[in-house]
Amino acid sequence: MYSASVTAPVNIATLKYWGKRDKDLNLPTNSSISVTLSQKDLRTLTTAATCESFIKDELYLNGNLESLESPRTQACLADLRRLRAELEAANTSLPKLSQFKLRIVSENNFPTAAGLASSAAGFAALITAIAKLYELPQDMSELSKIARKGSGSACRSLFGGFVAWEMGELKNGEDSKAVEVAPLSHWPTLKAAILVVSDDKKDTPSTTGMQTTVKTSDLFQYRINEVVPKRFEEMKQSILNKEFETFGELTMKDSNSFHAVCLDSYPPIFYLNDTSKRIIKLIHKLNEQEGKIIAAYTFDAGPNAVIYYDESNESKVLGLIHTYFNQVGGWEKFDTTTLEKVIIEGTSSDIYKGVSRIILTSIGGGPQVTNESLIDQDGKVIA
Amino acid sequence: MYSASVTAPVNIATLKYWGKRDKDLNLPTNSSISVTLSQKDLRTLTTAATCESFIKDELYLNGNLESLESPRTQACLADLRRLRAELEAANTSLPKLSQFKLRIVSENNFPTAAGLASSAAGFAALITAIAKLYELPQDMSELSKIARKGSGSACRSLFGGFVAWEMGELKNGEDSKAVEVAPLSHWPTLKAAILVVSDDKKDTPSTTGMQTTVKTSDLFQYRINEVVPKRFEEMKQSILNKEFETFGELTMKDSNSFHAVCLDSYPPIFYLNDTSKRIIKLIHKLNEQEGKIIAAYTFDAGPNAVIYYDESNESKVLGLIHTYFNQVGGWEKFDTTTLEKVIIEGTSSDIYKGVSRIILTSIGGGPQVTNESLIDQDGKVIA
Repeated sequence: MYSASVTAPVNIATLKYWGKRDKDLNLPTNSSISVTLSQKDLRTLTTAATCESFIKDELYLNGNLESLESPRTQACLADLRRLRAELEAANTSLPKLSQFKLRIVSENNFPTAAGLASSAAGFAALITAIAKLYELPQDMSELSKIARKGSGSACRSLFGGFVAWEMGELKNGEDSKAVEVAPLSHWPTLKAAILVVSDDKKDTPSTTGMQTTVKTSDLFQYRINEVVPKRFEEMKQSILNKEFETFGELTMKDSNSFHAVCLDSYPPIFYLNDTSKRIIKLIHKLNEQEGKIIAAYTFDAGPNAVIYYDESNESKVLGLIHTYFNQVGGWEKFDTTTLEKVIIEGTSSDIYKGVSRIILTSIGGGPQVTNESLIDQDGKVIA
Repeated sequence: MYSASVTAPVNIATLKYWGKRDKDLNLPTNSSISVTLSQKDLRTLTTAATCESFIKDELYLNGNLESLESPRTQACLADLRRLRAELEAANTSLPKLSQFKLRIVSENNFPTAAGLASSAAGFAALITAIAKLYELPQDMSELSKIARKGSGSACRSLFGGFVAWEMGELKNGEDSKAVEVAPLSHWPTLKAAILVVSDDKKDTPSTTGMQTTVKTSDLFQYRINEVVPKRFEEMKQSILNKEFETFGELTMKDSNSFHAVCLDSYPPIFYLNDTSKRIIKLIHKLNEQEGKIIAAYTFDAGPNAVIYYDESNESKVLGLIHTYFNQVGGWEKFDTTTLEKVIIEGTSSDIYKGVSRIILTSIGGGPQVTNESLIDQDGKVIA
């Protein structure tokens, strides 16, 4: 039996991916940028094993046997096997792993229920674990194209630090891939606080939502043709210059622009709820009170807020969040005595009621090979 | 003493006015379209009186003495006095009303607190009452330019039925005026249900909001240059053809487009709350269930929903609203036994909690001269 284990991170876009120009290949209508989050707090661990005696491909996700039948997963496995088969053809002494069945076991260190796009970390871990198992020579950008076919935003989880997903132009998607904008070491003091917002309703799934927006929103065309290309260059520059104010403003504007085209869709799509909006106002008022941008929110296809800030402003930014959300779980490992009490006038003291959990984390590195395995020497899943 | 009394209606835009190209003259960045609502349910009654013995201009609004000092009100009064002075210059036998002070008394037949743009009806009544008092020969479109200076959307309340506010091009605003698209008699079966939505927060005032959007929203330029001009023509045509489906779809899309550019502003502006969004979903599901558009929502700069429908679908549209909002006040004068029970799966039964009042009304006529006076023969305000 052969096996390899990898951990992969979650990433949260600061310039949003919204709209597919090719649904099967997950080709986007615009380029996007993200920050990779630390695997200490949020990661997927995946072990991929293969053996001549395995009877069929199997996937265990957080302890449950899951289907591998989706066309997206099938496309990823086919690509990886094809690359392995090329290696085997070039070097006939290699074991014919491409012909064996796979056993894949995957586990998140955070509850899936939190509504944090776990599919990105999941597909990134799946692709890199199998690539390691197959000893593929392809670099991360090459592998990102395979991850992209599994889940668009997964391609960005193949790098740490700041990552761009270049939309590309080719019909076959061969130039639609993730690249590093700057590594973790470039700006290691970037932090993120995630406010998990409670929601009663089921959100529109992002693939469905994107299709509706592309088809019906008048404003969307302007966003992808005019707004995003300019913002993409400006945001990259702000990252390279470590200018938090510019980076933060662009991040907030792009989150709002994305939710605006959702609202301009027909029927309209809503991801922000009243709690999300109150958090947005809170952050704007904090920045106003400070006279500069020290915190920036962004919201994906759901009501959860991700607040980016630089460590140098931690006592104020987390101070604000702690002032209003200290009753919410998530502060246990953090020394809150160092935080300032930050009051924003007009903020209702019951704002915490809409938030179910706080996750305090930071920018992090890319996928990592690990010795921790979820499959034992006999090929059995470790419970 | 000379006096005249007029009632003027509320209007609710179906193609939204959002953005000023000139703040002092209230010149808009796009043309808009509205439906005038019946004065049986919503109207302002204004009596304007003038007398040589009056010492100063005075305005009583719903029983309270209010300031007339705002530059906008001053601009309206100056315009009306100038037109009267022209008459007096041409015919010296006329009393010199333009030189007398004015006493203006105004009353709404609906609570201002409902958050229904009462300034439109208010300025329309003010301008038409004084025009009547002064016996001005100008037509409604001419007078609408004066009302526009008081409150932009007030210009549309000078006509009944369906009204367009043509944005115009001139710097002095002389071509920015209201015109009739179709009179009340063209489509008298159009009805409106207003769901007054409770809200804890104070909304951004519309003038401030517009300025923020014009200055900061990237998507706004596309809305005013590309989206609205096309929609303006399509909506006018749908009204002329009495095609509710097209009219309704355009109305809903334009409401969403307007709220989208609010959200794309920096900082973002939110007028829709969670209850508004639930009402939007309810209407889309009703239309889906019916297989055609029989109801159309629109939201101004606040969370209140206005639902337009044709009388032929009343038992279904009001049936739906009654099913979910029968506990809310406003049904007293209505025979609800004729309504169908309309169930939309997945709708929470507590949706009514976010709505404080229902106003059932219909399309209506323009300003009307009335014998009902709010000032007695001695010039005293009638309490």
